[in-house]
Amino acid sequence: MTKSLTDIQNIIQSELLRFIDINNSKSSIYQPISYLLQAGGKRIRPAMSLMAANLFTDDLSGAIRPALAIEVFHNFTLMHDDIMDNAPLRRGLKTVHKKWNTNVGILSGDAMLIQSYQLLADTQPELIPQLLDVFSVTGLDVCEGQQMDMEFETRSDVGVDEYLFMIRLKTSVLLAGAMQIGAIIGGADNDSQKLVYEFGENLGMAFQLRDDYLDAFGDPIKTGKQPGGDILADKKTLLLIRALEKSTASTKAILEKYIGNSNCNSKEKVNSVLEVFEALGLREEMNELIIQYDGKAIKSLAAIEVTTERKKPLLDLATALLTRES
Amino acid sequence: MTKSLTDIQNIIQSELLRFIDINNSKSSIYQPISYLLQAGGKRIRPAMSLMAANLFTDDLSGAIRPALAIEVFHNFTLMHDDIMDNAPLRRGLKTVHKKWNTNVGILSGDAMLIQSYQLLADTQPELIPQLLDVFSVTGLDVCEGQQMDMEFETRSDVGVDEYLFMIRLKTSVLLAGAMQIGAIIGGADNDSQKLVYEFGENLGMAFQLRDDYLDAFGDPIKTGKQPGGDILADKKTLLLIRALEKSTASTKAILEKYIGNSNCNSKEKVNSVLEVFEALGLREEMNELIIQYDGKAIKSLAAIEVTTERKKPLLDLATALLTRES
Repeated sequence: MTKSLTDIQNIIQSELLRFIDINNSKSSIYQPISYLLQAGGKRIRPAMSLMAANLFTDDLSGAIRPALAIEVFHNFTLMHDDIMDNAPLRRGLKTVHKKWNTNVGILSGDAMLIQSYQLLADTQPELIPQLLDVFSVTGLDVCEGQQMDMEFETRSDVGVDEYLFMIRLKTSVLLAGAMQIGAIIGGADNDSQKLVYEFGENLGMAFQLRDDYLDAFGDPIKTGKQPGGDILADKKTLLLIRALEKSTASTKAILEKYIGNSNCNSKEKVNSVLEVFEALGLREEMNELIIQYDGKAIKSLAAIEVTTERKKPLLDLATALLTRES
Repeated sequence: MTKSLTDIQNIIQSELLRFIDINNSKSSIYQPISYLLQAGGKRIRPAMSLMAANLFTDDLSGAIRPALAIEVFHNFTLMHDDIMDNAPLRRGLKTVHKKWNTNVGILSGDAMLIQSYQLLADTQPELIPQLLDVFSVTGLDVCEGQQMDMEFETRSDVGVDEYLFMIRLKTSVLLAGAMQIGAIIGGADNDSQKLVYEFGENLGMAFQLRDDYLDAFGDPIKTGKQPGGDILADKKTLLLIRALEKSTASTKAILEKYIGNSNCNSKEKVNSVLEVFEALGLREEMNELIIQYDGKAIKSLAAIEVTTERKKPLLDLATALLTRES
């Protein structure tokens, strides 16, 4: 039977708690891992992984630990990215390198990456070579995406295609890889695996762009934070790239006045840049792009040869992710 | 046929160069990996891994890439350890985080760890689950060893057993794991794998203690460096731990005057502490301990049920490692 999102989330949560408990009983290197995993997160990646398995099989037992591997890998990237970005907070708590120190953040992150491989391998042995291949290729993609993201910070000529390529590597491929891993364990053939991967990849793009959209145009009451965090941080998002491309002299002057300038009033900066975004029609443009990626994702899902009923939880989750207001 | 050490080293070198070449043709994240691997190193771990395979089989083809995995993993730990230790130089060249920056060192190290898993998996598929298990357990041991080593820096009550446990995790298990991986690929049964592991583990202990010995008592003409690097860095080596344990009031006073004190004359510090080491008989004690571990290693090797001729290259390398003067 196809499991509901709630069922899937319960499976993940209980397996995650078991993993955290075991880590807590071990050497001090594992404490920061438990700390970060306990701090929360939407657990979207493992959920999508299990749902992908559930498209093809009712027996999810072999898919649970590999799904957890994806979540642990994702959190490993957060632990190291937070060091690289010098971020003080994560999920409302101190980042690991701030609560402990940078060395602890590096070393516990390394251990976390190794543990993700251990979790991945906790399934049917005959599947391990293929899972390992997908997992490692995906992992390197994510590292390359992070590298591009860092390089973008010091560049002023980042184009739309490059940006989309970067978020594809940094965000989308992990969702795609997570789903392919689930599909492999579920017994999907190669064609179905490819469709599942494409679904995850395009959904991941839409998901990341929705994030950027909400940061600029989200309702502060619903998101729970002031809009314009990316603007204040001078982050090179698609919105800023497109704004610079579409600008006339007058709007360009406004952008150039505020971007990279931390000596101005925050509220004034955010409002002025947001006005430019609106004036250039970027709210609509972003929405259209998100719908495009969403459409591609849905098309891939539709092409998978299983019953509509089996696809329902994935479709529901995809819809929820893309219409979310926070 | 049993391959000579030179044959083995040639196989590793050519495979390593191929790996470096491919990395050079890829994204910028892989350049620091090539840089560090090209800088040199004795390649002892992959050599021992191949030799372990060669104990049981003449066909080493499936053992080469996993042996390289060990070398890449080892270099990954060096890249991250150098950040944690704030080391400026490695193999006579700038460390990666000094030549590029800390973020590059973290991220390229992460990619390197993932690449080591890719190399490990480039062998007979049916062996992968078992290899993966040994590799991940070993990897976590090494991380735990590094964690202990860092914790020792701020402690003044480190005992002999703890120290030996730490170097076992940080250094010995990787040699042991490398050899077990080779043995598995060579087709060794469980008992033989265990003996091979024990050989590597005890040889690793002797090897690390020989390092500590040479740092204190080595002939500067042969080692190419002034003795006492560990003393100057106030490193908590077995020599210092034992010196503090064995000291009477007068020698203890000398140690306490110099250890942790960077305002004194370097030459005076090294000479005074070395005199205490000699007076307490630590040169002999260290030699005896090394011989003990060496003896255990040789005993395990002797018990492996293959011909003496097949064991010869391993025995030669072990002897060379333990009688080395540099």
